[in-house]
Amino acid sequence: MSKTKVGIINVTGYAGIELARLLHLHPEVELTSVTGRSAAGKKLGDVFPHAASINLTIEPELGDVDIAFSAMPHKDSAQAIIPLLNKGVKAVDISADFRLKDASEYDSWYGFTHSAPQLLKEAVYGLPELHRTDITAARLIANPGCYPTSAILALAPAIKEDIIEPDIIIDSKSGVSGAGRSLRLGSHYSEVNEDISAYALGGHRHLPEITQEIALLRPQRPPRITFTPHLTPMTRGILTACYIALSPGKITIDKNGEEKIREIYRTFYQNEPFVRVLETPPHTKYTWGSNSCLIYTTIDMRTGRLIVISCIDNLVKGAAGQAIQNMNIMLGLPEVTGLEALAIFP
Amino acid sequence: MSKTKVGIINVTGYAGIELARLLHLHPEVELTSVTGRSAAGKKLGDVFPHAASINLTIEPELGDVDIAFSAMPHKDSAQAIIPLLNKGVKAVDISADFRLKDASEYDSWYGFTHSAPQLLKEAVYGLPELHRTDITAARLIANPGCYPTSAILALAPAIKEDIIEPDIIIDSKSGVSGAGRSLRLGSHYSEVNEDISAYALGGHRHLPEITQEIALLRPQRPPRITFTPHLTPMTRGILTACYIALSPGKITIDKNGEEKIREIYRTFYQNEPFVRVLETPPHTKYTWGSNSCLIYTTIDMRTGRLIVISCIDNLVKGAAGQAIQNMNIMLGLPEVTGLEALAIFP
Amino acid sequence: MSKTKVGIINVTGYAGIELARLLHLHPEVELTSVTGRSAAGKKLGDVFPHAASINLTIEPELGDVDIAFSAMPHKDSAQAIIPLLNKGVKAVDISADFRLKDASEYDSWYGFTHSAPQLLKEAVYGLPELHRTDITAARLIANPGCYPTSAILALAPAIKEDIIEPDIIIDSKSGVSGAGRSLRLGSHYSEVNEDISAYALGGHRHLPEITQEIALLRPQRPPRITFTPHLTPMTRGILTACYIALSPGKITIDKNGEEKIREIYRTFYQNEPFVRVLETPPHTKYTWGSNSCLIYTTIDMRTGRLIVISCIDNLVKGAAGQAIQNMNIMLGLPEVTGLEALAIFP
Amino acid sequence: MSKTKVGIINVTGYAGIELARLLHLHPEVELTSVTGRSAAGKKLGDVFPHAASINLTIEPELGDVDIAFSAMPHKDSAQAIIPLLNKGVKAVDISADFRLKDASEYDSWYGFTHSAPQLLKEAVYGLPELHRTDITAARLIANPGCYPTSAILALAPAIKEDIIEPDIIIDSKSGVSGAGRSLRLGSHYSEVNEDISAYALGGHRHLPEITQEIALLRPQRPPRITFTPHLTPMTRGILTACYIALSPGKITIDKNGEEKIREIYRTFYQNEPFVRVLETPPHTKYTWGSNSCLIYTTIDMRTGRLIVISCIDNLVKGAAGQAIQNMNIMLGLPEVTGLEALAIFP
Repeated sequence: MSKTKVGIINVTGYAGIELARLLHLHPEVELTSVTGRSAAGKKLGDVFPHAASINLTIEPELGDVDIAFSAMPHKDSAQAIIPLLNKGVKAVDISADFRLKDASEYDSWYGFTHSAPQLLKEAVYGLPELHRTDITAARLIANPGCYPTSAILALAPAIKEDIIEPDIIIDSKSGVSGAGRSLRLGSHYSEVNEDISAYALGGHRHLPEITQEIALLRPQRPPRITFTPHLTPMTRGILTACYIALSPGKITIDKNGEEKIREIYRTFYQNEPFVRVLETPPHTKYTWGSNSCLIYTTIDMRTGRLIVISCIDNLVKGAAGQAIQNMNIMLGLPEVTGLEALAIFP
Repeated sequence: MSKTKVGIINVTGYAGIELARLLHLHPEVELTSVTGRSAAGKKLGDVFPHAASINLTIEPELGDVDIAFSAMPHKDSAQAIIPLLNKGVKAVDISADFRLKDASEYDSWYGFTHSAPQLLKEAVYGLPELHRTDITAARLIANPGCYPTSAILALAPAIKEDIIEPDIIIDSKSGVSGAGRSLRLGSHYSEVNEDISAYALGGHRHLPEITQEIALLRPQRPPRITFTPHLTPMTRGILTACYIALSPGKITIDKNGEEKIREIYRTFYQNEPFVRVLETPPHTKYTWGSNSCLIYTTIDMRTGRLIVISCIDNLVKGAAGQAIQNMNIMLGLPEVTGLEALAIFP
Repeated sequence: MSKTKVGIINVTGYAGIELARLLHLHPEVELTSVTGRSAAGKKLGDVFPHAASINLTIEPELGDVDIAFSAMPHKDSAQAIIPLLNKGVKAVDISADFRLKDASEYDSWYGFTHSAPQLLKEAVYGLPELHRTDITAARLIANPGCYPTSAILALAPAIKEDIIEPDIIIDSKSGVSGAGRSLRLGSHYSEVNEDISAYALGGHRHLPEITQEIALLRPQRPPRITFTPHLTPMTRGILTACYIALSPGKITIDKNGEEKIREIYRTFYQNEPFVRVLETPPHTKYTWGSNSCLIYTTIDMRTGRLIVISCIDNLVKGAAGQAIQNMNIMLGLPEVTGLEALAIFP
Repeated sequence: MSKTKVGIINVTGYAGIELARLLHLHPEVELTSVTGRSAAGKKLGDVFPHAASINLTIEPELGDVDIAFSAMPHKDSAQAIIPLLNKGVKAVDISADFRLKDASEYDSWYGFTHSAPQLLKEAVYGLPELHRTDITAARLIANPGCYPTSAILALAPAIKEDIIEPDIIIDSKSGVSGAGRSLRLGSHYSEVNEDISAYALGGHRHLPEITQEIALLRPQRPPRITFTPHLTPMTRGILTACYIALSPGKITIDKNGEEKIREIYRTFYQNEPFVRVLETPPHTKYTWGSNSCLIYTTIDMRTGRLIVISCIDNLVKGAAGQAIQNMNIMLGLPEVTGLEALAIFP
């Protein structure tokens, strides 16, 4: 029986080549086509020598595939995906183009008018831990952003159980690969090495995505979120710290309350293959190259605040790995297929 | 006229050798004695080849000096300093041993009973921006911790002007040199490189110090602080993000309010040679090797929260540089003497 | 049919845990026992959270296995392996204890008298590209050192073809994980970050190993090797540069000669699954986490010298990956089994 | 008395801003003008926040100065300098435009025909340790390249004493700042971090410069140099390893010979304020931010080769610091003026 054929639009960025790496060893699908505008005509291994054993030439347009992954920048990604959907190809979009349900958000956050607002309703926000059932039947997946993946997974159980207040502080720290492969002074080695900075303090594009999903989990008490991303001197990894006051009367501010919260988290994620609730604060390095998300919860006993720390590899669970997890669900495959590798440590 | 003679107790740690580096070019004092237990008898340049032009031998005990800097670990530092005070030597203590006014805090936070509680009252918390007058006359300075320096300077103007609520979130990111030169798996290169983690979530020793100083600035509304330190893969630098709700009716949640806050900060620090209020978010790299503290304030317009970002070099303004700044004040020298070097960039 | 049972002696070092990572997904063997002295009794996932899905407890002694990997330090490793051999267990030794054929070398290079010199003859130096046939039948494999793997693979074709002189300069640059997990000032983050240094200039322990293998390839012209290792600020990777004068009359000093050398290398490695001869200088990052060795050859046209650059991941092809490659050969499995993952980039 | 006025052409690159940093605290000159094409009109502190205390606006053209430093790229630098010389301004050129005595070398190495070959004869190669007397009287200094500084200082004593053969291997490792501030994939953080690679294997532009100076030191035996630069994951620093056979009959291959060589080096550099001969291999980190060059010599006893290791900060002794050292000599100032700061460690 022939394998499902998959393709990658824009393989030459970091999410694109990470998809290729993971798909190369996936036992149930076959990577048959990859595109990239500037590098079209080159062998994939000439652009990425580490991937030379993937014997594909970069094409200007995607060949015949059953499922397409788009790693295009936003706005262009929708343009690439819509014709494919019309041809019956299923799509997992790594860009932001189908993540937000409210089309007007694209005008305010991304500066363009969405060309296919009707698809926003159909697209499924591809966070399997929240939307697995819908993903099963979807033909268009909006793969979550890297920061939102870490933040939503950190907050979901506490929001769902309604144990925290709506005022939420999210302080995230990301490696530089999250800024992509395009040249910019802010990703220039000598500027970024041995440096930490906060950015997008006026509002990062991942904020509406986080807000949308948290609001869905507890519509009766809409969140008020402050989200601050930071750039840190490492290639991969996101560590997110969330600070939220515990709602009065639900959790006691003591070791019992702390244990009760951990139990809530463990229960929420008990059947999740990629989310693990730890007893000690996680390190991004524990997720390096893997699709796992690690979560730690604790109560600041002096102030009665819940602190949740989560971490992921931004290019795997925060992008390419999660996209493949979504594909596995769409294809009815075991969700972990091709994603079982441990993190590489050290 | 002979120069003031200064000495360093425990020159072999990172704060100690940084003191030596800065004092070496200080035009008004002379570094005449350095101690270090394990390395006693060696030339300073044999332990630290970059400092070979400081022609001193590491001694077991401090020689005759007018001012002593102690870079000993806590508890041992007080033991080293008390006899010096009794001999009439002034002291700047880089350890935590005289920072907390309430002696019982040493039992709960540091696990030892303070041997000279009477000195806690006399010691001046050496943050010149808050206690300059007292420093002038002091014979014992408790040099602030690195995290507290970044946090207190970030918060002081807003607290003093009473424009923010008492619930304060402080999320700090530090380079690895803050963990010192003692060998530990948590400072082992391969474990720390390409990694970020939060630590001391149950309460970091720098919390009572921050709380004490913030409470002093606004005794009528004691703060409730959550402080989370993070270890990040760089050698030097601390970036601190503070999140606080604006008090109702004081600052408008708009560009005017934002400008008004910046004006409050600029006014508060207008005569401070080492604190600079920026118009854009700072990078730790802008402070590398220098005694400067950079601060940025902004309002999260969606939630009405004040965000303050500050950064310092943890070994300079967070330790050795601030200690010399204190010494300059004690000696009646221009405060910037020996501390005027720019940060090294990139 | 039951899988071959394998065990790891001293799983708590970097080579040990890397073996565990790779063996965990190996489809033909089962990791059933891991040991570690200081951590005995703990769950593997408590010591290495990234490996929590390996459900094993660290034991003081190895359980029943068919093949044992030893990641013990030298001298101790032989002590651990000899009883296993006597029980009929095959062994792959990651330490240096069986690499050198001349027992007296252990006295001069490692400072101990070898306890089982008779096994030195039997042990096979586990560089499959040179000794595949012997490995097939071996019960004891001496897994090559990381530097020797990169150096020998870089030199073997040119030595075998007898086109270069015996005077060989090898300048190698290694990531810090090569120095292991034991705490030392030389692996302390703040000392190593943003630093490069040469070390072991009086003679590194990997030199006799390189010399032995190069001499075997061309016994008639024994090599005179200068080998200088360097420590560089990264976790993984070795880049080796070799400089050797071309022997007169064999290769023309022009583009034709350069192409002829590349052809020699390509032919030598044409059936090797893990060695690839590139047309452009390799980057260690192209091998990160993978078992590949990349090689580039060029002639310095001004001087007639051959320059060969090679790189590997020191913990994979330089340690754990090569050990599994050896195991695959011993078991008659396809050599790439469990080792097909691409390098992780970026 | 008014200070000498100095200016920097192209302050917006790494060498340019490093000049500004060092000149800012220089007690005998005043930085009065800085230029930069893309940033003209901006305050220096807006482009480089760490340098905000230098109160200068970036100009399109240099104002009236006594001495100009050019940090322009090659070819453009000569164009900028020649008119200044004609006006009587002295110049220190950080670019390569006046380093090579043979004008035809510019055609072959830099791809342009030199516009002022007559100035090549007049220009002094600004390595003070070799050309101090000529620098004193010069009006045009060709400031050496970073790699040549480390290599020539490593080799000069042995060449001058005629104890080594003409076949010289130079293997250099540089931090990324040496590649400048212009955006390129090869300086993109995620590509360079955790990576080492060799480059310019067909011949690096710094080779003719090294060859020229080494040949001058021993005209009777012209060198045959292989020079391989490497890019390493750090911001600053160059470590150079040189491998050369000892000439027969001059130095014994034993500890006495080794000591004799050290004595030759110590004697050669005995009056040099910035070159230090160490007893142990140097680390680039020992020079971070300082103008020092550290050198270590040893004999590989097995092969009779001399190994010399040297290191510098590529932006200080390898660029801006050396330029100021040259200026000090031209002005008759103590050579160390403004350059006495120790390296920053860690």
